[in-house]
Amino acid sequence: VFVQITVKTSKSDDLAGMSAPQRNWKGIAIALLVILAVCSLITLSVILLTPVDTQPSSDTKLMVEDLFSTDFYVHDPEACWINGKTIQPQSHSEVLQLDPPEVLNSKLQHAAWGVQGQQLVYIFENNIYYQSDVRTNSLRLTSSGKEGVIYNGIADWLYEEEVLHTHVAHWWSPDGERLAFLVLNDSLVPNMALPTFTGSTYPKGKQYPYPKAGQPNPMVKLFVVNLYGPTHTLELTPPDELKLREHYVVMVKWISKTKTAVRWLNRAQNVSILTVCDSTTGACIKRHEETSEVWLSRQNQEPFFCRDGNRFFLTVPVKQGGRGDFQHVAMFTSQARADQNELRHLTSGNWEVTQILAYDENSQSIYFLSTEGSSSRRQLFSVSTVGLFPRRCLTCELNKAHCTFFSADFSPTNQHVLLHCKGMKTVYYDSVFIRVFSVFISDTAPGGQQVNDRYSLDWDSVLVSSDNVIVARLDGRGSGFQGQKVLQEVHRRLGSVELQDQLAAVEYLLKLPYIDRTRIGVFGRGYGGYVALLLIKSTENVFKCAAAMSPVTDWSLYASAFSERYLGFPLQDDSRYQVGDVCCRIHRSSNTQILFPAANVHFQHTAELIKNLVKVGANYTLQIYPDEGHFLSKSSQRHVASTLSSYFRSCLQEEVLPISEEEEEEEE
Amino acid sequence: VFVQITVKTSKSDDLAGMSAPQRNWKGIAIALLVILAVCSLITLSVILLTPVDTQPSSDTKLMVEDLFSTDFYVHDPEACWINGKTIQPQSHSEVLQLDPPEVLNSKLQHAAWGVQGQQLVYIFENNIYYQSDVRTNSLRLTSSGKEGVIYNGIADWLYEEEVLHTHVAHWWSPDGERLAFLVLNDSLVPNMALPTFTGSTYPKGKQYPYPKAGQPNPMVKLFVVNLYGPTHTLELTPPDELKLREHYVVMVKWISKTKTAVRWLNRAQNVSILTVCDSTTGACIKRHEETSEVWLSRQNQEPFFCRDGNRFFLTVPVKQGGRGDFQHVAMFTSQARADQNELRHLTSGNWEVTQILAYDENSQSIYFLSTEGSSSRRQLFSVSTVGLFPRRCLTCELNKAHCTFFSADFSPTNQHVLLHCKGMKTVYYDSVFIRVFSVFISDTAPGGQQVNDRYSLDWDSVLVSSDNVIVARLDGRGSGFQGQKVLQEVHRRLGSVELQDQLAAVEYLLKLPYIDRTRIGVFGRGYGGYVALLLIKSTENVFKCAAAMSPVTDWSLYASAFSERYLGFPLQDDSRYQVGDVCCRIHRSSNTQILFPAANVHFQHTAELIKNLVKVGANYTLQIYPDEGHFLSKSSQRHVASTLSSYFRSCLQEEVLPISEEEEEEEE
Repeated sequence: VFVQITVKTSKSDDLAGMSAPQRNWKGIAIALLVILAVCSLITLSVILLTPVDTQPSSDTKLMVEDLFSTDFYVHDPEACWINGKTIQPQSHSEVLQLDPPEVLNSKLQHAAWGVQGQQLVYIFENNIYYQSDVRTNSLRLTSSGKEGVIYNGIADWLYEEEVLHTHVAHWWSPDGERLAFLVLNDSLVPNMALPTFTGSTYPKGKQYPYPKAGQPNPMVKLFVVNLYGPTHTLELTPPDELKLREHYVVMVKWISKTKTAVRWLNRAQNVSILTVCDSTTGACIKRHEETSEVWLSRQNQEPFFCRDGNRFFLTVPVKQGGRGDFQHVAMFTSQARADQNELRHLTSGNWEVTQILAYDENSQSIYFLSTEGSSSRRQLFSVSTVGLFPRRCLTCELNKAHCTFFSADFSPTNQHVLLHCKGMKTVYYDSVFIRVFSVFISDTAPGGQQVNDRYSLDWDSVLVSSDNVIVARLDGRGSGFQGQKVLQEVHRRLGSVELQDQLAAVEYLLKLPYIDRTRIGVFGRGYGGYVALLLIKSTENVFKCAAAMSPVTDWSLYASAFSERYLGFPLQDDSRYQVGDVCCRIHRSSNTQILFPAANVHFQHTAELIKNLVKVGANYTLQIYPDEGHFLSKSSQRHVASTLSSYFRSCLQEEVLPISEEEEEEEE
Repeated sequence: VFVQITVKTSKSDDLAGMSAPQRNWKGIAIALLVILAVCSLITLSVILLTPVDTQPSSDTKLMVEDLFSTDFYVHDPEACWINGKTIQPQSHSEVLQLDPPEVLNSKLQHAAWGVQGQQLVYIFENNIYYQSDVRTNSLRLTSSGKEGVIYNGIADWLYEEEVLHTHVAHWWSPDGERLAFLVLNDSLVPNMALPTFTGSTYPKGKQYPYPKAGQPNPMVKLFVVNLYGPTHTLELTPPDELKLREHYVVMVKWISKTKTAVRWLNRAQNVSILTVCDSTTGACIKRHEETSEVWLSRQNQEPFFCRDGNRFFLTVPVKQGGRGDFQHVAMFTSQARADQNELRHLTSGNWEVTQILAYDENSQSIYFLSTEGSSSRRQLFSVSTVGLFPRRCLTCELNKAHCTFFSADFSPTNQHVLLHCKGMKTVYYDSVFIRVFSVFISDTAPGGQQVNDRYSLDWDSVLVSSDNVIVARLDGRGSGFQGQKVLQEVHRRLGSVELQDQLAAVEYLLKLPYIDRTRIGVFGRGYGGYVALLLIKSTENVFKCAAAMSPVTDWSLYASAFSERYLGFPLQDDSRYQVGDVCCRIHRSSNTQILFPAANVHFQHTAELIKNLVKVGANYTLQIYPDEGHFLSKSSQRHVASTLSSYFRSCLQEEVLPISEEEEEEEE
């Protein structure tokens, strides 16, 4: 097994891959901003150029091919912080073989640097291997690993997709002396078979443990292994409240050389306990508990601890009058009893802190992104942790470049920040166009956001630019960044309230004078595909066209952690689950397009849907992308974009009556 | 396990389910003929009524729904012969449970009456069970059965689909005292996984042994078990020439109470040995051997033996001048040495005997169907086995009813025959229609026939009736019933000569004055799908539309017995196999429709095709029919018919230019 690794030299506090002298953050920010702004302006100009003339000349039109041309790519310098003040002037690379003696012909599952020197950690056959240096022998840290059964330091399907949102399930202590890792036992989890059809004489059927709603979940344990001296592995014990109940480990963060902050969540996802664990004894002490009538969100959120561990910062929901709870920065300070805190709210208002980015203990400041001003924006703010908690917007003054949607990446010592401009306020015109038809897009998952300033170009942009199509997006109940109330309205009502909102939006659209009522389409993906199918099911002759990409059609077939979060543990004949059964009620008359990447576990949903579409003799077309996973290959992405834009173009086309033969002859 | 069985009383020589007095065969034949002729006339009238007027009124048009309405079904009385002279005036039925003690919760794989009294044979878990009477206990005849590994008396995938063409792999002796059965050992055969997606929380992946070209085949043995008295099982030994070579058992027929005729075929399918085996000793004596430079066809054909076993009848290829070999009736008579025969040809000519139906030793006559007069016909003939072998057509005199395509079913004592009229000569008109476009249909497998008088109505009939479409069918090289030369031309050249013929036919079509050159489509299924894809690959802008149903795209992924028959055992980088690799060369511009029943093993072919269609950005649409096998459900059949007719209708539609807005306004 070969893996290419770049030998790095550990210095501190500069950008990887950049050999330039040190820069101040503002300089970097502006430089990046300029690069991105140029790209964004190209886009903007396209959007602005488009719909005024109903027959624009073809050279101003955005085509599907343009979506994949480098001209329209946002230049990403892929800058990131490494632990170095300066970096080696010539970065040089060599290829080393990772070849532990215990492993024969196995696929490398993960490899990464540690935090000190040339420490390496990598995973084969669900076991963790460690090297203190690229030249030393490997040390196997676990031996229980078994494909599809026991996972050490690496996530199974559920943890990767629905719990941790990464396949990495191990965490370095800041001094590189210890490694915390999860052990997931999937022996009771039922398997899904994922066939791979192409590329070999016999299709290969891969088995994945995949717990569906109500099925046995993986059992999780958290360990810490000591790497200096004789290795020693210790379990970090779950809090008493969850020890004997099914639970998830949703967040692990080292807060000192020997202590980790760990968040534990019950299976119902409405009791969450933040503990601080001592990796020398394995004992975990409760520092904060959250409970809710609905599900708890932001469970991956990392707390920011001060050096002595007595104080930490988190976002928590805070009541803002009649509009319900919004997420704000809170400061928790230890009291006499370790599990009691003094709680101070550092921010408040009818907007949300979307992410805490850094806590700088020297300047006593918290840095965070928020939606202050508009839920479609993300600006960088600082707030003082002392006095009257004065708050300052750090990016608003950069608004001369119109950037309204930032992400930010702080250097390890919080002295510098990389700012990424992700988009700017789109200028909307009040102009009225005649004969405009509409595509209606619904979102991929609850908690997401469709309407914001983040720049994106996709197949629907082509329709907007070239086909006089208005694309409407709606963040109804169930969407994020507008407070907890909007988000949590879908609890145990998935497929009802958000459908009502979508229907209301469609009714609004239908009243607009410049929209052709006879030519409205709908598109959705994943959960959005489910909503799209519900929309055509619950209306008659409203939507001329509908496309669903990898739609969910039955929540009982979906992942436990997802379905149970919104619908609760399924009971016998659970009506909350059954409301999602869209298969059997699709109208015969609808003209549906289903797109589907075939190696995906979700093909089952499509199969159920198609079976029913065939049964009722519905008019539909299908595209599948065999042996593709979550992330489609470039050629498949291009095919999807081309298929969707052509489908809506031709489906939304004005119907033309064929010229009768006499007329034709007369014309000749 | 319950199975419904009808208790019968064994008498001899009458029709099951008919309580009327005995009838002469001519009477029955005419009665049936009338029924079928009426149905056929309805169809014919539709066809005749259709294309004269270019805008016929809708009530004379055939619609897709009509294909599935009972009005257009051929009435099938499902008459068959049972071993009885008269039958019980009231047939009565009761439900009995087949529940052998060895089996728990298993699926019944097969159940059938024996030949004497109420003898029963049935199969659970690949083991054969026997009951001498419906009321007696079951007797397990084999114990080696294991799902997917050892098959007793029942065919594995290869034997069912490509060798025996039935799942039944056991044969009763005429007195019911013995049962011959195959034992198939698939332990070395690689498995295909067939996922079932719908109807359960987790998709089920069923494993089937499926030998592809060049892969290990099932090993076959033939046994006879003695059922009266203590059961005793004996192997029938293969002929010496094939004992140590891979071979198939392709035909087993009892020719007396203790003797069976067995045909053994080598894996290359060009050496075939007909033996007569003694079921009391297991010894098999060679009676006839066939060898060929190409593959041997008609290997399932049963020989007709006279009572003393010294004489038998078969069809064999007979040279007819420059036109090559045609299949004719031959009489083999034993000589001093048992494996030497005197061979007499009873028929000859540039036409083929398609099937020997009966040998009546009393009247010294052979009854057979042939293509004499036209390869599109099937008429029933008799030929005397003595004298100058005078031949007589028995159904030609029935031609006043225009029937030209018969099948026939002789009673066990050859005294009566059931005649089925399957179709009649279609009347072709020379009328010239303007603006007719065309769909070109290719065949499902080599050896098949597209052009004959057999009545059929399908989606293409709708196009003919309602859309001014001409449907052309061609039997080029590789097709059957026109002599061995036409058939065998594809040997080791699959995908080349038949393609040339199809191309020539298309060229001919393009020259016809009444055909619109810009609107030609092509359709094929299975092997025909492969040919259709080759056609669009090897032409440019000839076909506006193409549809392939379950197309084969790579012969190395196809069943051993099929691929090796036409292409030989695959060698490393076998160019004969690679010529079939149509995937990578499909034109980007082609507008292809692929239909596919998804639980089919052949999905792999479609997956490879789609992957390449996506890669080149080809324009295609897809329909899949999840969890359907070889035989589609009624709703899926309807969906296929509707999809194909709509696809060709819209794809072959004349392009109309949209009326510009000014013109439109002027008109208003």
